[in-house]
Amino acid sequence: MDFKNLSTQYKNELLDNVVPFWLNKSQDQEFGGYFTCLDREGNVYDTDKFIWLQAREVWLFSMLYNRVEQKPEWLECARQGGEFLKLYGHDGNYNWYFSLTKEGKPLIQPYNIFSYTFAAMAFAQLGLATGSDEYTHIAKATYDRILERQINPKGRYNKAVPGTRNLKNFALPMIMCNLNLEMEHILGKEFVEQSAEKLIDEVMNVFYRPELGLIVENVNADGSFSDTFDGRLLNPGHAIEAMWFIMDLAERMNKKDIITKASQITLQTLEHGWDQEHGGIFYFMDAKNHPPQQLEWDQKLWWVHLETLISTLKSYRLTGSQESLKWFEKVHEYTWAHFKDTQHPEWFGYLNRRGEVSLSLKGGKWKGCFHVPRGLYQVWKELEIS
Amino acid sequence: MDFKNLSTQYKNELLDNVVPFWLNKSQDQEFGGYFTCLDREGNVYDTDKFIWLQAREVWLFSMLYNRVEQKPEWLECARQGGEFLKLYGHDGNYNWYFSLTKEGKPLIQPYNIFSYTFAAMAFAQLGLATGSDEYTHIAKATYDRILERQINPKGRYNKAVPGTRNLKNFALPMIMCNLNLEMEHILGKEFVEQSAEKLIDEVMNVFYRPELGLIVENVNADGSFSDTFDGRLLNPGHAIEAMWFIMDLAERMNKKDIITKASQITLQTLEHGWDQEHGGIFYFMDAKNHPPQQLEWDQKLWWVHLETLISTLKSYRLTGSQESLKWFEKVHEYTWAHFKDTQHPEWFGYLNRRGEVSLSLKGGKWKGCFHVPRGLYQVWKELEIS
Repeated sequence: MDFKNLSTQYKNELLDNVVPFWLNKSQDQEFGGYFTCLDREGNVYDTDKFIWLQAREVWLFSMLYNRVEQKPEWLECARQGGEFLKLYGHDGNYNWYFSLTKEGKPLIQPYNIFSYTFAAMAFAQLGLATGSDEYTHIAKATYDRILERQINPKGRYNKAVPGTRNLKNFALPMIMCNLNLEMEHILGKEFVEQSAEKLIDEVMNVFYRPELGLIVENVNADGSFSDTFDGRLLNPGHAIEAMWFIMDLAERMNKKDIITKASQITLQTLEHGWDQEHGGIFYFMDAKNHPPQQLEWDQKLWWVHLETLISTLKSYRLTGSQESLKWFEKVHEYTWAHFKDTQHPEWFGYLNRRGEVSLSLKGGKWKGCFHVPRGLYQVWKELEIS
Repeated sequence: MDFKNLSTQYKNELLDNVVPFWLNKSQDQEFGGYFTCLDREGNVYDTDKFIWLQAREVWLFSMLYNRVEQKPEWLECARQGGEFLKLYGHDGNYNWYFSLTKEGKPLIQPYNIFSYTFAAMAFAQLGLATGSDEYTHIAKATYDRILERQINPKGRYNKAVPGTRNLKNFALPMIMCNLNLEMEHILGKEFVEQSAEKLIDEVMNVFYRPELGLIVENVNADGSFSDTFDGRLLNPGHAIEAMWFIMDLAERMNKKDIITKASQITLQTLEHGWDQEHGGIFYFMDAKNHPPQQLEWDQKLWWVHLETLISTLKSYRLTGSQESLKWFEKVHEYTWAHFKDTQHPEWFGYLNRRGEVSLSLKGGKWKGCFHVPRGLYQVWKELEIS
């Protein structure tokens, strides 16, 4: 592979195709914030505003401003979204709603802790971009709420009867690996280093099951395997995404053994999650090969493949593993062949098992200005320094 | 079509294939109740017990005992499931949990009102089968809970912020059309007749939208169309199933105009929901042809097709519509060709858009001893009297 040409390919796709799409199509000029429900050509088909995606777009444009180029239109795009979130996104006490109407009226209560994590990430990066203490304060106050809620993230919306089957979920420790690095300038070196030990242990020794060679989505509260639908659930894309968060954290902490292990888990997950028949990575699987509950289990999702490009490439740069490079090339081929829309800007998100487009939207309730541009940015930069 | 041969085909499939499968494979001899997570051959792959499916199997075996033949093993199968539900299925006050462990420990809180409706239906039919006042009392007490909860069915688990977008959902009035007839011996003639007016109005004049010619899953509290993801959501199988509930109710009330309208809505929904490319009926659609949120939107589900067989055949018997008979034949061909497992008992539940098996399970969290045997029974009987 010619890394120089490839790096240019990712950079150009990011700056000439994907970023202009969101900059021009998603901003709500009337009420602020962003429309994320955009059809194949970028037309708005629904106006609800989902906090995950509002926050992620604030983060993305702040990040581009901070790390790529100080373009005033990027800063303004991030800032206006941050203002909308600041005014309407929470209940006054940094409990972040799940969704709002286009005017900013709350639709769905603050039941989802990832609305908080993406808000914290957004305001931390926006604080850096603007130098505003107010935004940095919002990031810190939101982070405090996350710590308060982390024991029972769903709070009063938790439908599990206490005591029968107490499970803990992989997503929060996984996201915290990334969020703590994003917020180190606010949280401080000591806090990040101390938390890292616990987070790495949780991801690599509790949710990673050596008997399977895989990461599961849920374990019993005592850390043991739960032979239930939730306990057997595998989400290969999730596990692989977590591995680049772990590699970043381990690089920051200078823990080579953890980098090696994360690289191995990436490869093991790919071997297990790759669809031998049609190509691409499955969305959900069952650790014992029972039928999963998720009807969409065999679909091929954009974020799974973009995150895999990042993890395999970081693994190659940090360990020199040729196996990682081979997988990067294989997933690169699949991803560009199937997810890139060659007729209209931005990428498809949802393919069926055969790799055919199942939903032609460019954005919706879950797909917004995040995984495609973050993935393109990360791969561009990794290729530059590899 | 030779209705006599066809009737025998449905009867034999019910009594020689499907009923023995559940009778022999699903009963938990140790703790009582039923395992519903059964793989293609009928082996148990998960032991959680979901109240919807526990109650539906109690209902099905009671119904067979009451309407087909007084087989002691059918009654015992229903009775032991009823005992398990009576002891473990609710909180002591007929608030029905969503799921239990195999031993009967509650797993998921009583957040779902359809656990209540299926429990009421089960105990009403079991009361008839056994002559037990205790079971009939449980059915009545549960029905009272449903009436108390119907304004806000999700109760404290409702995540919608009050006041912003108050929607009401189609499923409850739809199910009540059927449940009231199932429970007329308990609720009384007068109650059923009075409720029927309101229920028929709700289904046929509020959730049915003449401008679309279709039934939507959610409307605003004032009965107007909501141009949102929830408001645009179509579930063709749901709408078509409701039409045979309405036809039954209208037949009971001797309302010929309602029968005619229900027959028309069935046909309109089929025309709209039929996949012209691959055959079969879509699972979810958007009333304005925007992308739906449900990733499984284009899958072909067993219950959709079985319910359609019932509705088209009732429509034919009650109105003489040749169009209904044509659709019955078309859906009959598709259903037997794609859902029936010719190598192992019972039917597949989940096909992809092309009609290929996506999950080979015979039962799971949502598929149990219900739509296949109820559909076979209903079609058998309709063919007999047509």
